[in-house]
Amino acid sequence: MNEEFTVDIPVRYRDLDPLGHVNNAVYVSYLETARVDYLEAVADIAAEDISFVIANLEIDYERPITKGDDPTVALWIAELGETSCTMDYEIRADGTVAATAETTMVHVDPDTGRATPLPDELRARMQPSENVGPSA
Amino acid sequence: MNEEFTVDIPVRYRDLDPLGHVNNAVYVSYLETARVDYLEAVADIAAEDISFVIANLEIDYERPITKGDDPTVALWIAELGETSCTMDYEIRADGTVAATAETTMVHVDPDTGRATPLPDELRARMQPSENVGPSA
Amino acid sequence: MNEEFTVDIPVRYRDLDPLGHVNNAVYVSYLETARVDYLEAVADIAAEDISFVIANLEIDYERPITKGDDPTVALWIAELGETSCTMDYEIRADGTVAATAETTMVHVDPDTGRATPLPDELRARMQPSENVGPSA
Amino acid sequence: MNEEFTVDIPVRYRDLDPLGHVNNAVYVSYLETARVDYLEAVADIAAEDISFVIANLEIDYERPITKGDDPTVALWIAELGETSCTMDYEIRADGTVAATAETTMVHVDPDTGRATPLPDELRARMQPSENVGPSA
Repeated sequence: MNEEFTVDIPVRYRDLDPLGHVNNAVYVSYLETARVDYLEAVADIAAEDISFVIANLEIDYERPITKGDDPTVALWIAELGETSCTMDYEIRADGTVAATAETTMVHVDPDTGRATPLPDELRARMQPSENVGPSA
Repeated sequence: MNEEFTVDIPVRYRDLDPLGHVNNAVYVSYLETARVDYLEAVADIAAEDISFVIANLEIDYERPITKGDDPTVALWIAELGETSCTMDYEIRADGTVAATAETTMVHVDPDTGRATPLPDELRARMQPSENVGPSA
Repeated sequence: MNEEFTVDIPVRYRDLDPLGHVNNAVYVSYLETARVDYLEAVADIAAEDISFVIANLEIDYERPITKGDDPTVALWIAELGETSCTMDYEIRADGTVAATAETTMVHVDPDTGRATPLPDELRARMQPSENVGPSA
Repeated sequence: MNEEFTVDIPVRYRDLDPLGHVNNAVYVSYLETARVDYLEAVADIAAEDISFVIANLEIDYERPITKGDDPTVALWIAELGETSCTMDYEIRADGTVAATAETTMVHVDPDTGRATPLPDELRARMQPSENVGPSA
């Protein structure tokens, strides 16, 4: 998987706050939308079968996103641990980076809710990307 | 304007409720997304200059929408009053009608908040559609 | 059940739209919040076991709700059918009625998704209210 | 300001994801709700006059929040810079810490959108708390 994975996210009016900007919590939904699409497209995990829980999220807001923008979320695997996966993201809008983010997810056993090692097959599909990464 | 106006709305994971279905309130955001796009594309009103307020909304939920669906909202003008506009909608997903809806909006003066007649220019652009309407 | 059932709903900043008003779709979430609380408190149905699906919703928006308001949703049973339940609502804010609404729900068998008669026990608990109703 | 500032946030059904847990992006709205209330109550800044923009957010998710929980957000000022303010948060539910978070906001001139020093009066009101902080 050496191609960048990107998802276009049309801004909805409901995403806007009283300043007319996409609300800061909605950026987090944009990340999630891209992540769920990635897990489905690359790791072949359907939305209803996601076995990861978010343990940590960090996001840097670089500039506002407004209704006229046409944001795209790019994501790539930064690191695969024994039971965890770290993803990096860029939200791009209008040719610039609107936000960068990182999430760490833990792979859990759906029955016990406990951390459990990533299956080899999943690990193979989610290998950290080599030729992709943040905008220069 | 005798062509049907439609907007594709990708389902976001955040739209889903504990049953895995798009939440009933989110259908209303889908209608709004289509309406705002219509006002911008057809009536040439930017999202930040919308001079309509919603007075009434009615929606019939026909079937659940899930993550795998790819819903489209179709809308058309049902009636133009002196100071009001009634729009009809169909939310279509997977080849069937997932919901039908109607909203009545009042055109208001942004300074006073009072109902005010639709300007002729706007009225001309928003004429009720002749050859479009609900699915048979 | 001859007392009015009401739920206070603190407005969140995220509920506001670019005009600084609670978004029209968020009113529908306010109704749902009250309905879920009602089903839990009166009908003894936990949020994860709700066996009703919304078939129809109608809402009249009377006036905007803003951050300073402290809205309350009042609801009562308008009608109990063989397999359905109609609820009426008032969203009150700052001493006035901000919206009135009605939802019709169908009672479904969770396994088949088909309409199924309301169990007698549930019917007894949800009897239409006699001494409650809309503000004069 | 040596008392802890806390805000109770009733969970709404709409906050839940397909697993029945409060969605990870909704935690961020909970932080915002508390922050806006803090700015209004302590710094005397109305929701519509907020002159801070979020530059960075980090959140550690400790455990799921569900409908039965009754979460409270505690927040305190961690650091006041020349033009910035760092706040720390705990989301507590059912007697435990469900999440910890930190946001850094930049104080901006609403006309230019540029970083501008915190006015002395505001700085005085928002002094970092001495006797409050995270749960032991």
